[in-house]
Amino acid sequence: MSNYTNSPCAACKFLRRKCTSDCVFAPYFPPEEPTKFANVHRIFGASNVSKILQEVAPHQREDAVNSLAYEAEARLKDPVYGCVGAISVLQRQVLRLQRELEETNADLMRYASCLGGETTSAYGGRRG
Amino acid sequence: MSNYTNSPCAACKFLRRKCTSDCVFAPYFPPEEPTKFANVHRIFGASNVSKILQEVAPHQREDAVNSLAYEAEARLKDPVYGCVGAISVLQRQVLRLQRELEETNADLMRYASCLGGETTSAYGGRRG
Repeated sequence: MSNYTNSPCAACKFLRRKCTSDCVFAPYFPPEEPTKFANVHRIFGASNVSKILQEVAPHQREDAVNSLAYEAEARLKDPVYGCVGAISVLQRQVLRLQRELEETNADLMRYASCLGGETTSAYGGRRG
Repeated sequence: MSNYTNSPCAACKFLRRKCTSDCVFAPYFPPEEPTKFANVHRIFGASNVSKILQEVAPHQREDAVNSLAYEAEARLKDPVYGCVGAISVLQRQVLRLQRELEETNADLMRYASCLGGETTSAYGGRRG
């Protein structure tokens, strides 16, 4: 049975089966969040989710379920790219920021060479 | 049958079924790439992959299959986080780069205020 209430967990409710005390889904799919299970079931299938949970150490199962729920939601929103779309957007953002940082550093170097001696006063102080 | 050879596509070979001319998998799972299908089948299940393909316009199916294959491979490598792990890494990288860029811009502003008039020569040229 679900840890949180006396009603069956969201997975057993969805699959219309008895929720037993050793239910692999119950700790991660409380009845209050029916969509979480419906989403992962629709994208991965209950049996694949169960297999993944069995492969993972108990203390990592919550993270595993949450990452599966994230992937499932992303795939339902964007059936073509799923959360791989987010990866592409982030990769482009990283490239843009790296380029911008390189340009800003180059500007900084130009300023530093213009300032010449004054640079030393800003970084480490002028000596002698 | 697979577009590429006379042998059944990787999906039909894996599922030990006849590969017909209207096979939904054949264009995206050539027999030369058996792992691609094995991976998506293991994580999503053939019937879910087929459902996703039916939902997607034909010209987007190749992208959909490739993103599913990417997600499946990531989940097999990292059963806890899958490709959501890559998203977390990229999000942290974006935050770090944004912070670094802000700091570099602040340095640049300090230099610019030190140089005073000379700034105009670097940006847009000195006129008159």
